Amino acid sequence: MAGIAKSSEGWHWTPSGGLVAGIPSKGVIQPSQNIKQSDAVFDVIVIGAGYTGLTATRDLTTSGVKTLLLEGRDRIGGRTWSSNIDGYPYEMGGTWVHWFQPHVYRELSRYGMINELVHSTDFTKKHNYFSFATRSGRRTMSHEEEDEMFSRAMQKFVNVDGNFGKTVMPFPFDAYWNKNVLKYANLSVADRIAQIRHDLSEDERHAIESFVLLCSGGTAQNSAFLDFLRWWAAGNYDYRTLLDTIIVFKLKCGQSEFARRFFNEALATSNLAYSFNTVISRVDSTNNTVRVTTRDGRAFQAKRVICTAPLNVLSKIAFNPPLLAEKTEASKLKHVNQCVKVHAEIKDPEMRSWSGVTYPDNKLVIGLADGKTPAGYTHCVFFGCDANHIHAEENIDETLKAVKKFAPMDVNRLVFHNWSKDEFAEGAWVWYRPGMEVKYLEALRRRQGAVLFANSDWAAGGWRSFIDGAIQSGTEAALTVRGELQGESRASHL
Amino acid sequence: MAGIAKSSEGWHWTPSGGLVAGIPSKGVIQPSQNIKQSDAVFDVIVIGAGYTGLTATRDLTTSGVKTLLLEGRDRIGGRTWSSNIDGYPYEMGGTWVHWFQPHVYRELSRYGMINELVHSTDFTKKHNYFSFATRSGRRTMSHEEEDEMFSRAMQKFVNVDGNFGKTVMPFPFDAYWNKNVLKYANLSVADRIAQIRHDLSEDERHAIESFVLLCSGGTAQNSAFLDFLRWWAAGNYDYRTLLDTIIVFKLKCGQSEFARRFFNEALATSNLAYSFNTVISRVDSTNNTVRVTTRDGRAFQAKRVICTAPLNVLSKIAFNPPLLAEKTEASKLKHVNQCVKVHAEIKDPEMRSWSGVTYPDNKLVIGLADGKTPAGYTHCVFFGCDANHIHAEENIDETLKAVKKFAPMDVNRLVFHNWSKDEFAEGAWVWYRPGMEVKYLEALRRRQGAVLFANSDWAAGGWRSFIDGAIQSGTEAALTVRGELQGESRASHL
Repeated sequence: MAGIAKSSEGWHWTPSGGLVAGIPSKGVIQPSQNIKQSDAVFDVIVIGAGYTGLTATRDLTTSGVKTLLLEGRDRIGGRTWSSNIDGYPYEMGGTWVHWFQPHVYRELSRYGMINELVHSTDFTKKHNYFSFATRSGRRTMSHEEEDEMFSRAMQKFVNVDGNFGKTVMPFPFDAYWNKNVLKYANLSVADRIAQIRHDLSEDERHAIESFVLLCSGGTAQNSAFLDFLRWWAAGNYDYRTLLDTIIVFKLKCGQSEFARRFFNEALATSNLAYSFNTVISRVDSTNNTVRVTTRDGRAFQAKRVICTAPLNVLSKIAFNPPLLAEKTEASKLKHVNQCVKVHAEIKDPEMRSWSGVTYPDNKLVIGLADGKTPAGYTHCVFFGCDANHIHAEENIDETLKAVKKFAPMDVNRLVFHNWSKDEFAEGAWVWYRPGMEVKYLEALRRRQGAVLFANSDWAAGGWRSFIDGAIQSGTEAALTVRGELQGESRASHL
Repeated sequence: MAGIAKSSEGWHWTPSGGLVAGIPSKGVIQPSQNIKQSDAVFDVIVIGAGYTGLTATRDLTTSGVKTLLLEGRDRIGGRTWSSNIDGYPYEMGGTWVHWFQPHVYRELSRYGMINELVHSTDFTKKHNYFSFATRSGRRTMSHEEEDEMFSRAMQKFVNVDGNFGKTVMPFPFDAYWNKNVLKYANLSVADRIAQIRHDLSEDERHAIESFVLLCSGGTAQNSAFLDFLRWWAAGNYDYRTLLDTIIVFKLKCGQSEFARRFFNEALATSNLAYSFNTVISRVDSTNNTVRVTTRDGRAFQAKRVICTAPLNVLSKIAFNPPLLAEKTEASKLKHVNQCVKVHAEIKDPEMRSWSGVTYPDNKLVIGLADGKTPAGYTHCVFFGCDANHIHAEENIDETLKAVKKFAPMDVNRLVFHNWSKDEFAEGAWVWYRPGMEVKYLEALRRRQGAVLFANSDWAAGGWRSFIDGAIQSGTEAALTVRGELQGESRASHL
């Protein structure tokens, strides 16, 4: 689209054009840097321009703090960005928001964007049903039946306490208030299913596995049960409320437009220097000064660094003094989310009311109608996970086959980002292995001298792993740093 | 309590001490002003130190904007403040919060206070039941039966569309997206009950009336149905979710401690001048300068004014140019909330699990256990409304009688604030008369030149009338003003 720059990231396939690397996005920043010769020492360097880094940068620059934002990609948004094709945004990563997600909603409200919220779902079209294809066969259900089955199954899954998790996790934002929750710290999703297997129908088991794998992007064996319990608690211990909160409302203008508001507000203060396509190789701290070195040999200095590199790539940066051993260990162990997210434009407007599961024998597990494209066709989004994983761009025929396994579909377009092969993420939103949260979370949050570590992957909120958690984490880091710099500035004027 | 100053506001009664005016609160600011001789012209004057004014002041001062905060009371918090007796906070006004209320929760998270959230409810004690006393008689129910009855009744009340309000108000934060909602704009609560009367049992009707009057603080005749529909939508169209969100979680430290965080953060910037016990009489605008005159004859000037006076008292300030006619009209018409809120310390720890309704023949309508006092007794809170209204301090015997009508109670203490006689509020949280929202909301929000009007009473969020709405409104006003001043400053440097 005219006026929207092309990112080097993402993939776009059409029957006529074939597979093309790179997609236009409002998140691409041009010019890619604005650093002046004189910019040698900053108050703060923020590493990473995802929502965590953008929020920290916005909060610092609007408080008068000279900030340098460094980003390896050509765009803002990190694991959340919108490709823009014919003016229509396909969300390559983070998508849905809700007024029950406090940090992200506060920002939407602050930027006057609440009227941008639209429903992903539209149950007014002809194919208004749910396809359920498992080893027990292939059926269609009404969406009410779908909800009823998933709600019943998920209640069994979380009901470790006879109170649907309420007594073991009474506050979603602090898993550790209630020591009872520690009993479940090492439980995998597969372990929990084994515990209740005698009480589950085959349908219910398939419902649990497909929904939880949609959430975790891992396998039933490597995904922690505790992470699901937190999502469940954050969704007020109710399947429908959880669903409404995490997979129903998206932004009409696309997430990249939202992300730009943070960037533009920071830029307007004149306190922001930035450089994209700038990969960090080293972070060296000495006596209250931190030196950040880029892969292409540039170096910048600041009083503080806020590093927002995600868990799965954190240990690729060389820190001196070195990262805490627990940080390195957790980063090398990695979280499990290798979510595959594929958008398909389907040449049938009536599919707008559809959703479906094909599990466990398909490369994509869950699909749902997500919008209406400019051509009047249906935009469906499909999710796969690390169980039965696919690299969509490596075999488009396989990907198309996986899409068509849900229902007969005339596919006009595919759009996706391969998060597993993304060098700055190596995965999607965080989902821990059993035991990892209890073992590593505190260490991941711990600062090391003048270097702070902020990311949704270890955010304190109930919506850790969501955009909400990223904003929370960035807010917290900026507030800490601003307070310290103000204090130092005051002390130096005495 | 040592170290906590006494506010001139609020009332405290004990059997031995009788009725005493004024209660200690962490919200009292001492010294009551910090204005210097040299402080003549400010960037911004904020009128009112409730959450709206505090948020605006905090956001402005932390962005380097010289701000003067003027407040008629001796304390911060406006319609939300905690009296502090023996170290225990009784919430005189706004109390409950939830992670589903985005603006207030974002602030709690930002100030590292999420661990301050505690449950008002505790269903582990002996008197674990709900008393229901109506003209049909007096009964007790389990809390499960209570929930079931209220949920069933409220579903009938809101079900104008066969979808529990979802289709007429698909977004709680914008009542006007869906024109269908306008059909209900002039409906009173009584009108709506009349529509469904044939489908309601006497119990259900009493349940609806008592719950909605708890929410509105008015009468069934003067309370708008639309306001309830918005609360319902904000609570995700579900009674239990709504209840969890608005009446379950409070702050262990008290709201005034929370409010202080905003004030203290602003003060730490050195950009804050303030004066309490400072009642505004006039606001005169001329050529981009606004002059604010106090009742005691002082005058201050600023480039912008953010006036946060609530609806019911807004027209008591003389504006020149005058207030928009719609603003004056709405302010003189007033919203209906004349909520009576009375705290009682009950000499029975086992009452901690109790709740009850006495309706319509009591001066207090709803009561519920709200905490455990330092003495180990039960803290219960009671709510009345404009139907069968009482000025609690004028007849303590009547008030005690109203409390004891719920259940036999040995009352050790009463604590309350008479919001109806409060000259700076003349009522509690906003609840409009039928038709008022559609007729006046847009005008109430409209700025007049350099004077902006911000208050939860006309906040854009789904939680208008809540602390959440106050913070939203203050955030918005500060952002607007900061942007304008930055722009002017940049222009003047060209």
